[in-house]
Amino acid sequence: MPLGERIGDKSDSRYCGVETEYDDDMPQLLSTNINGGFDFVVSPLMEPSYRPSLMDTGHKGSGLAPFAGSDLVLSPSQWSSHVVGKISSWIDLDSEDEILRKDSEIVLKQEISWASHLSLQACLLPTPKGASCANYARCVNQILQNLNNMQLWLRIPLDKSEDDAMNGNSDHLSEGQVDSWETWNCYRLLCEHHSQLSIALDVLSSLPSANSLGRWFGEPVRAAIIHTNSFLTNARGYPCLSKRHQRLMTAFFNHSIQIVVSGTPVHNLPTGNLELVANHTDNHIDGIQRHPLRTYLDYVSYLYQKMDPLPEQERFELGYRDFLQSPLQPLMDNLEAQTYETFEKDTVKYIQYERAVSKALLDRISDEEASMKTTVLMVVGAGRGPLVRASLQAAEETGRKLKVYAVEKNPNAVVTLHNLVKLEGWEDVVTIVSCDMRCWDAPEKADILVSELLGSFGDNELSPECLDGAQRFLKQDGISIPSSYTSFIQPVTTSKLYNDVKAHKDLVHFETAYVVKLHRVARLAPSQPVFTFTHPEYSTTKNNQRYKKLQFEIPQDSGSVMVHGFAGYFDATLYKDVHLGIEPSTATPNMFSWFPIFFPLRTPVGVRPGSPLELQLWRCSGSTKVWYEWCVTCPSASPIHNSNGRSYWVGL
Amino acid sequence: MPLGERIGDKSDSRYCGVETEYDDDMPQLLSTNINGGFDFVVSPLMEPSYRPSLMDTGHKGSGLAPFAGSDLVLSPSQWSSHVVGKISSWIDLDSEDEILRKDSEIVLKQEISWASHLSLQACLLPTPKGASCANYARCVNQILQNLNNMQLWLRIPLDKSEDDAMNGNSDHLSEGQVDSWETWNCYRLLCEHHSQLSIALDVLSSLPSANSLGRWFGEPVRAAIIHTNSFLTNARGYPCLSKRHQRLMTAFFNHSIQIVVSGTPVHNLPTGNLELVANHTDNHIDGIQRHPLRTYLDYVSYLYQKMDPLPEQERFELGYRDFLQSPLQPLMDNLEAQTYETFEKDTVKYIQYERAVSKALLDRISDEEASMKTTVLMVVGAGRGPLVRASLQAAEETGRKLKVYAVEKNPNAVVTLHNLVKLEGWEDVVTIVSCDMRCWDAPEKADILVSELLGSFGDNELSPECLDGAQRFLKQDGISIPSSYTSFIQPVTTSKLYNDVKAHKDLVHFETAYVVKLHRVARLAPSQPVFTFTHPEYSTTKNNQRYKKLQFEIPQDSGSVMVHGFAGYFDATLYKDVHLGIEPSTATPNMFSWFPIFFPLRTPVGVRPGSPLELQLWRCSGSTKVWYEWCVTCPSASPIHNSNGRSYWVGL
Repeated sequence: MPLGERIGDKSDSRYCGVETEYDDDMPQLLSTNINGGFDFVVSPLMEPSYRPSLMDTGHKGSGLAPFAGSDLVLSPSQWSSHVVGKISSWIDLDSEDEILRKDSEIVLKQEISWASHLSLQACLLPTPKGASCANYARCVNQILQNLNNMQLWLRIPLDKSEDDAMNGNSDHLSEGQVDSWETWNCYRLLCEHHSQLSIALDVLSSLPSANSLGRWFGEPVRAAIIHTNSFLTNARGYPCLSKRHQRLMTAFFNHSIQIVVSGTPVHNLPTGNLELVANHTDNHIDGIQRHPLRTYLDYVSYLYQKMDPLPEQERFELGYRDFLQSPLQPLMDNLEAQTYETFEKDTVKYIQYERAVSKALLDRISDEEASMKTTVLMVVGAGRGPLVRASLQAAEETGRKLKVYAVEKNPNAVVTLHNLVKLEGWEDVVTIVSCDMRCWDAPEKADILVSELLGSFGDNELSPECLDGAQRFLKQDGISIPSSYTSFIQPVTTSKLYNDVKAHKDLVHFETAYVVKLHRVARLAPSQPVFTFTHPEYSTTKNNQRYKKLQFEIPQDSGSVMVHGFAGYFDATLYKDVHLGIEPSTATPNMFSWFPIFFPLRTPVGVRPGSPLELQLWRCSGSTKVWYEWCVTCPSASPIHNSNGRSYWVGL
Repeated sequence: MPLGERIGDKSDSRYCGVETEYDDDMPQLLSTNINGGFDFVVSPLMEPSYRPSLMDTGHKGSGLAPFAGSDLVLSPSQWSSHVVGKISSWIDLDSEDEILRKDSEIVLKQEISWASHLSLQACLLPTPKGASCANYARCVNQILQNLNNMQLWLRIPLDKSEDDAMNGNSDHLSEGQVDSWETWNCYRLLCEHHSQLSIALDVLSSLPSANSLGRWFGEPVRAAIIHTNSFLTNARGYPCLSKRHQRLMTAFFNHSIQIVVSGTPVHNLPTGNLELVANHTDNHIDGIQRHPLRTYLDYVSYLYQKMDPLPEQERFELGYRDFLQSPLQPLMDNLEAQTYETFEKDTVKYIQYERAVSKALLDRISDEEASMKTTVLMVVGAGRGPLVRASLQAAEETGRKLKVYAVEKNPNAVVTLHNLVKLEGWEDVVTIVSCDMRCWDAPEKADILVSELLGSFGDNELSPECLDGAQRFLKQDGISIPSSYTSFIQPVTTSKLYNDVKAHKDLVHFETAYVVKLHRVARLAPSQPVFTFTHPEYSTTKNNQRYKKLQFEIPQDSGSVMVHGFAGYFDATLYKDVHLGIEPSTATPNMFSWFPIFFPLRTPVGVRPGSPLELQLWRCSGSTKVWYEWCVTCPSASPIHNSNGRSYWVGL
């Protein structure tokens, strides 16, 4: 039974599981737990005392591996929807004991083969026993090469030595281990970021720092196992979680991470209370024992249900989360009507433009001159007219007289533009020009040049080159809206996107920047400004090539991190204090025209605490195209990505 | 005029160049230096004062870049055979000064484009000015993407801070630079190990430690520029080099590295002496001035000529240097006659076998029993008979009676074997068995089992599996020759092999072990034992799978190093103290049957001084094949190479 309903949220995090002991009566085990309110069980598949090395000496006579139930006692669809296989937790592939190591390898392969046969969706792999996990990873990597689409969840305790105040839960803590993220990182590097290798986090009663925790949201975490002894007790004797744990749970829900409750009940509720709750939740069916972990489940449900509903914009963008899109080529290609329509809906953006035009008009034309002087405003890249409308509204609002030229290179959009002007009765004010702004021979010069040519990374849709071309017909004291824009960038962990890029198995995709709604991502350091362009720009040495070297400091308490690439944003000054942008710390609220840009790295770069991360980025241009090249030079040098724009470029 | 003749050595290191100043009369410059005894010049192509940014302001009116000569004053073949283009040394692509940076980029591209036009074989790129070289590398990397087959030699001073006692030569030393190898390493990583990017080392008067120097022999060093002020003065006033410099020069000669003499003469020889030398070397032609650097050249020639001639084995192996070969698959494939013939020539190997058999016979049969007892000796994998011969010689030498079974699975070799037995009159002693030893039903049991099934890495041609099969027909107290063998491995720098593997542009070649005569290689740490196999082996838990974790300590004074892969060897104990092997520190001299094995890494691993390097290696087996998997786990984890033997395996 799902934890609750949340409009628009169809993610797996609605389902809650429970970890169980081995039980050879799987149908009984399953019905108890499903009737108890859980959606799935995480259960051992094999009798825990089984050791292949003991078999020859007569331990068991049958020659059959001692599995719990078969595909006859439960149907494959029952297995698949309700059971996550828990691989024997005694296995230790990196033990010094060779017999244990060999037994472990045999059993691991047997169990996963059996789980595949049963069509399970996932198996839970036990936590590596020590800091060294290469043989374990080698064996799992071999399995992954030939696995059906089952996921393997590697169980990793959510701990870091500095917060190591846990002695009670030591069964999941490994000896001599510094930071469990490092164990995971080593393991998944050995397995080459295999897309079927993911994580089940063991949530313990103390939590590492926020920066340390943050790293996991760029990793493929599928489940979080919360232990009964990580719960506190509320005034009424019921289990509850600390504020930090609550926030973490909410973050899990928001990242499609399923909760699994584990352990034995440690909250002894008075019988009266129990009755009350049971009646209240309508789950006390005659003859069936109430599930001993029900109060924990109820608390998880409560946390799920008390989350704010997803805002409309988030719901709209759900389908785009972590989905790589190639950036538009608006100069080379003509946009489609659908694209115009989508972007025109972004009212927040046009309100900012209207405010900017208003301020510019007020600055340029005093109240006294308002009735005499007509301001020449040119919208360059008018599309289907939204900036024409915003400009006219600004004129009306400020009582200034306007003459508008709407310059648009896409002949299809020009048709719509003509219709709009006719429909709105703007014929006297608006002149439509069907021409590329870079070669238009303007009949007069403009006071104000209005454009929206910005890409996610500011200049990446060639606004600088277009406005350079348009600058010819701007008066010497004229105004460009936007007057400047700056790109921003920050390092991120995002194993999802890294894997999606890698899936193409070519260089081109690793040297392409993508537009993407970043969601399963860890932002590792504050973003920094990269390239700035200012308009108009009359300097004689003016040049749209750029080169920037950036150093990022990863916060010390993050621990080591893995950089899969860089997230890019922009912030534009439309006019004076009116700005527009998507840089996270200053982003214009409720604007949806731009998702961030993502620059991948061909090889993920590990950065140790306290070591700086140096990124170098170039904006290059040739006669027919503009492109970026990028590389990391610290902690060690990466290849230069996209040399000569061989993989990714924007056509002029 | 080459430095001298050395039998078998046809490498470029016979040719010596000279670095010159800019001269716009290139034919004159060239004839002076060629007549002066040098083979080529390293000369600037462009007037050093030229700056593109000054051109518009009327510095030069022609609009032509000021190049020294054209393809009309010297023919392309003259340019190509005698001139290395020296790129303007003022360029600084990582300057803080944007104008200098842009001028540098323009001039660099102009000069290299011009050099390509002239069909030069190489250009010398100036040393990066500072520790940061990313923009320089970015620009050169762009050039490399579209370059004809010209080489670019990056000029790198052979220094390291700890040896930084050089103030006189500071023009080639960069500010704040710690270790020039690190600059090179960063630069070539940014350029992705491009095969046309190589090194010209500036040899200064003081030298770094031997371990630090050693690193360069795994790098693509094409030239060494030796400065006149690095020379000492001998008793007679002539230039000479320190012992360490002499050894270094010899190492350069042995690695096909060309010497270039640079600088002004600093040894003022008395005129009398000069005459003497001039007459002696027959180089004082009427009217032509003796070359001012002639005494330096003569000294370089002297060093070249006093080298020991190449030993015969080295000459034989010259063609195999750094040439990747796939290991044999002797079990799956039948060897060809040519292969047998080559290996049979390795007399050293058979002498060792003969010694081993002799010792075993003496141990097994006392002098008293010698005339009564016949020892049953089986050669398993007899090929065309060399071990049969060695065994019979051992019997004769020791006066022991022998009965030999020669078991061979290759039916073609068996034909030759029959001929041999007939030819030698061995019919009474030798029984030929045409059968795979793993399934032969032997008529009696052997006292001694002799085999030579070893590969470069010991067990890699499946000696363990074959001898397991043959062990059935060895007496309980029988002897196997070899009685054991161990593989050894060490990390190496070898950019040549890395590039050759990379040139295949696929995963398979990066996950294959190669047999290769290692030459341009830096051995970074002593080799360590890996897997050992002992024969016979009667243990019940016996198993030919192996797993080993190795930690290498790179000597502190090496500085940082780059690991491109691992070189593998073996050492076999034939019998008691008679061994056979190729592990460098204990290798059997003058044996040529085995070159080392090379395990590449998909991504080279940088290791900082004092940081350990951890390698993990598995020998795995399935029903039809045996394979290795390997990975690096420290300083950071690599992918596991060759999972499930997907790329490389040896068929059973």
